[in-house]
Amino acid sequence: MHTDLVAALDIGGTKIAGALVDSSGRILLRAQRPTPARESGEAVMGAVDAVLGELAASAHWSAVRAVGIGSAGPVDASAGTVSPVNIPGWREFPLVSGVRRIAGARPVELVGDGVAIAAAEHWQGAAQGHDNALCMVVSTGVGGGLVLGGALHPGPTGNAGHIGHISVDLDGDPCPCGARGCVERIASGPNIARRALANGWRPGPDGETTAAAVAASARTGDPVATASFVRAARALAAGIAATATLVEIDIVVIGGGVAKSGEVLFAPLRAALADYATLSFVSGLAVVPARMGTDAGLVGAAAAALGGAPREPSVIG
Amino acid sequence: MHTDLVAALDIGGTKIAGALVDSSGRILLRAQRPTPARESGEAVMGAVDAVLGELAASAHWSAVRAVGIGSAGPVDASAGTVSPVNIPGWREFPLVSGVRRIAGARPVELVGDGVAIAAAEHWQGAAQGHDNALCMVVSTGVGGGLVLGGALHPGPTGNAGHIGHISVDLDGDPCPCGARGCVERIASGPNIARRALANGWRPGPDGETTAAAVAASARTGDPVATASFVRAARALAAGIAATATLVEIDIVVIGGGVAKSGEVLFAPLRAALADYATLSFVSGLAVVPARMGTDAGLVGAAAAALGGAPREPSVIG
Repeated sequence: MHTDLVAALDIGGTKIAGALVDSSGRILLRAQRPTPARESGEAVMGAVDAVLGELAASAHWSAVRAVGIGSAGPVDASAGTVSPVNIPGWREFPLVSGVRRIAGARPVELVGDGVAIAAAEHWQGAAQGHDNALCMVVSTGVGGGLVLGGALHPGPTGNAGHIGHISVDLDGDPCPCGARGCVERIASGPNIARRALANGWRPGPDGETTAAAVAASARTGDPVATASFVRAARALAAGIAATATLVEIDIVVIGGGVAKSGEVLFAPLRAALADYATLSFVSGLAVVPARMGTDAGLVGAAAAALGGAPREPSVIG
Repeated sequence: MHTDLVAALDIGGTKIAGALVDSSGRILLRAQRPTPARESGEAVMGAVDAVLGELAASAHWSAVRAVGIGSAGPVDASAGTVSPVNIPGWREFPLVSGVRRIAGARPVELVGDGVAIAAAEHWQGAAQGHDNALCMVVSTGVGGGLVLGGALHPGPTGNAGHIGHISVDLDGDPCPCGARGCVERIASGPNIARRALANGWRPGPDGETTAAAVAASARTGDPVATASFVRAARALAAGIAATATLVEIDIVVIGGGVAKSGEVLFAPLRAALADYATLSFVSGLAVVPARMGTDAGLVGAAAAALGGAPREPSVIG
């Protein structure tokens, strides 16, 4: 019987995943429900209850000493509430108090999903051993989290590292967030595809118009597809360089669907970083693909519960 | 006789200032030399030696327990070297080991000048009592420093908070740093004046073409002068919003010559912040003028020596 476990919740617009995780990051038990994202806030909380209830029914539950939640943002860790853009029924929804109904007296740690990814990559993935890191997801959206001075930096509300919504083009296209020229508005998968289509790129016989399809065209030398990735890479580079210049990081870890495009993204990104990360203390920045897979959110929520991305599994063993 | 003092050095392209500072931030003794910025690195170090030697000749010297240095950057706190852009004779110059020749076994703390300003504003000025703050100087250049989680965040090399060289306009004008569209390239005093002149603004009878002269015109309703400040304000707002979105801060303190323009800068800056700082966790951001005067660099270097911007004087008293 394990004596030191945490329960982890990974809450997104599509699914609500839960797990019991031991102090070495191993997942002992999983539970999952689809997110009823178009239903009421109570209905969404019902799905969380179902996931957590399934975990609580396990014989391991008595060994669970904390609950970690990584949620689509924005979150408010100080208030214990969440307002995920893609779950309209949750606006300043009291998620933490809802979880406490099952968690009881156990500490409940809430962070944004980008922060959770950073915790996971720092604990078990590509940022392991790095005291100052930016971990990003480039996918339908662009998110991230920071490790500073060897520890996770969630910020007071659990949202720090929100690199998708920093403006790198102050006169640029309006972003759904209300600002202009945000990194996400230029570099997310849908925006890579949108820009390629607008500039004359046409999908193959399968009709697929995703960023992955644009990446496939870029790999065969299509100039419009390539240009759309280069543009995304430049926006990511400007955002990454800004982050490094502001807080000093030595590694950037990038995961998510668009990062799976590989060198179609990473080659122009490294080239653009040389253009934007020019000061001596940021010019050595490394950019590497993420190592954590689809469990990153759960493992990161567990890490947050275990006390903020411990550097070595042994620290918390 | 004081029993708990630090020596502070504030090193810039124009002057090298030094002081003995007590644990409440009071300056007991000053020394100063012009910076022989066009001479050899050894000549510049000679001026530092002269300042420090004057402090060391004081009867208070035996009570000095540490030396803090705030220097024009970039600096490298981990290597103990500095490469100030405006002191060409110093490139990876071993300033810390030079200072140790007089400081002896005392700890020597090196930070960038923006970090020192932040330490001063957090300790004694407008950021007092704020756990998460960005403190900026908008002047000939644009610099800054961060307080995160209640403590100064110098970063591993002492350069964190370098907001002047983050790009907010990725296709913008080339910046001397090598990047494009940096905050400084748009919002520094010389760039405010340059843009006003390029757009048809003409100086008054005194012929003065400084940002202060442009501000005076803006105050009388000159549309070109006003537009140049609005443009600077938008670049500052985008950079400040990016910082808040990345690390979560609740206050921005702005000092320096351009900030002395007052509402000519602050009014459009607050308006532009509403456009760029849109996410819930950054929308409450306050922007206030700096409170520290010309001694900010010295007081901040002292704070860094005393252990990183103590929250209350009593903590270190």
